[in-house]
Amino acid sequence: MNNKITQLFDIHYPIIQAGMVWCSGWRLASAVSNAGGLGVIGSGSMKPDVLREHIQKCRLNTSSNFAVNVPLFSSYTIDHMKVIIEEKVPIVFTSAGNPSIWTQKLKSHSIVVVHVISNVKFALKAVDAGVDALVCEGFEAGGHNGREETTTFCLIPLIKKHVHLPLIAAGGIASGKSMLAAMVLGADAVQIGTRFVVAEESSAHLNFKKKVLSLKDGDTVLTLKELTPVRMIKNDFYNHLKEAYLNNASVNELEKLLGKGRAKNGMFLGDLIDGELEIGQVSSLLDVIEPASSIVEEIMREYNILKSEIMKL
Amino acid sequence: MNNKITQLFDIHYPIIQAGMVWCSGWRLASAVSNAGGLGVIGSGSMKPDVLREHIQKCRLNTSSNFAVNVPLFSSYTIDHMKVIIEEKVPIVFTSAGNPSIWTQKLKSHSIVVVHVISNVKFALKAVDAGVDALVCEGFEAGGHNGREETTTFCLIPLIKKHVHLPLIAAGGIASGKSMLAAMVLGADAVQIGTRFVVAEESSAHLNFKKKVLSLKDGDTVLTLKELTPVRMIKNDFYNHLKEAYLNNASVNELEKLLGKGRAKNGMFLGDLIDGELEIGQVSSLLDVIEPASSIVEEIMREYNILKSEIMKL
Repeated sequence: MNNKITQLFDIHYPIIQAGMVWCSGWRLASAVSNAGGLGVIGSGSMKPDVLREHIQKCRLNTSSNFAVNVPLFSSYTIDHMKVIIEEKVPIVFTSAGNPSIWTQKLKSHSIVVVHVISNVKFALKAVDAGVDALVCEGFEAGGHNGREETTTFCLIPLIKKHVHLPLIAAGGIASGKSMLAAMVLGADAVQIGTRFVVAEESSAHLNFKKKVLSLKDGDTVLTLKELTPVRMIKNDFYNHLKEAYLNNASVNELEKLLGKGRAKNGMFLGDLIDGELEIGQVSSLLDVIEPASSIVEEIMREYNILKSEIMKL
Repeated sequence: MNNKITQLFDIHYPIIQAGMVWCSGWRLASAVSNAGGLGVIGSGSMKPDVLREHIQKCRLNTSSNFAVNVPLFSSYTIDHMKVIIEEKVPIVFTSAGNPSIWTQKLKSHSIVVVHVISNVKFALKAVDAGVDALVCEGFEAGGHNGREETTTFCLIPLIKKHVHLPLIAAGGIASGKSMLAAMVLGADAVQIGTRFVVAEESSAHLNFKKKVLSLKDGDTVLTLKELTPVRMIKNDFYNHLKEAYLNNASVNELEKLLGKGRAKNGMFLGDLIDGELEIGQVSSLLDVIEPASSIVEEIMREYNILKSEIMKL
């Protein structure tokens, strides 16, 4: 394939593996890049020295391009960016913060910058900041998300109408079918998180992977909108949150209830009861744990078959 | 076009106009049916004698098939069904209730029955009830909606995986582009509400139509989940609801606050402040009031162009 995104990232297929805390280290990122997509290291769960190690190992394990995702609200952001520049990471995805602070700095080091948005307002801000492409993340996506609750089906055409940058659709995409639908809506590529959480190379705990494969529709929820909105599994921890909401918990009380380390406990250490288990709605369509390369191959196979059969619709 | 849905309804294009309270009477329904889609009279805002009048006028104004939508929680359901059977309406869409109660009765009168669902559980119940097709309504849709918040992008492939009936996608669809995306995801047809609310023939008040055309992303919300979840515009009435939620309003208090006639006041009488203004997320993509026939033609033109260009993706 050859389009704006494959050219921008110098990759074979317009499939981006989402940078995800506790799931996407060098193993997953290098596997996806080796399969022809773009692997993304999720720095949100790494200290700067750990990030450096992952970047170096990723480079050792793939000769293809890869990226690092940096949530801009992290207290490590400055140190992470230092590591990224020193290690000459070719592509950075910024999220959850103001892109104007880092975009030009990164670009001055010839780094391609992509920013994650979930509404028109921040899309236009990212354009002003000079980013090279946008990830448009719909309401159905796992993990951190926007407050407007705009779904992938509405968000992609809407951003396309307002912005002339290459667009990467995120949220609800896990197959060649959903990839083609996203491209029809106007995306140039897709970012896939949930399906790569259950890849063999994902560092998610096996308990978490199995839990993800067992989910049905309605088993995830976008919550904690008063802090940073996040889509997670409705487990016991979520029930405590729900109770707190019913008791009119303040933002402080919610923060206290959330505490520290819950995402690690849930996704990396496998505590399905008290952990925070971030995952997308599309989990209800997934059945197997398989290598990242099989995921990329199957998606591209299905995408190409559907494309050739579309005249029948 | 020729597929399971065009055959089932005997229509030219797999475009269904959603049955909508205060918007879709005989004028809109007959215009859509005359344009080659399926017009649907929304009985939810009609007394039985008014419904009868709309059915008769619709028949006078189109020689094509049309349908009636019946929300099964209505106190008029029994009377509405009597009118529908007496007037020999060929197709009925049932929603918001248990399909097992009415499906066989309607089918015994040779009426095609379609049921609206938003999760797998009710899809399977509708299959058991013997319906002929399903409308799968995503979280982004306007008006009454499901509690699971599953979006169109996730819902269509999920229902397709569990059910072998013809599927009609609803929620977020307003263009040839989104129609093709829905078909790629596995739908056999699309149901379009929001875009037909602003059709010339829609009985929505001009104030409401203009308000819909002014909406941006994030201007609608799915609320009142404790009663019947409904997507509406965030106007002053919604702000009162929000306040009530912050004050831990009981279900009774919410019902009292909602009161009677708010949807009529908002959508039919044009009270943008205190009215209940039901509309979908896709409103942020709409710009013009135009005849229903232009809407159907433009959607089909865009759909066919995109389909022929898809090999470029």
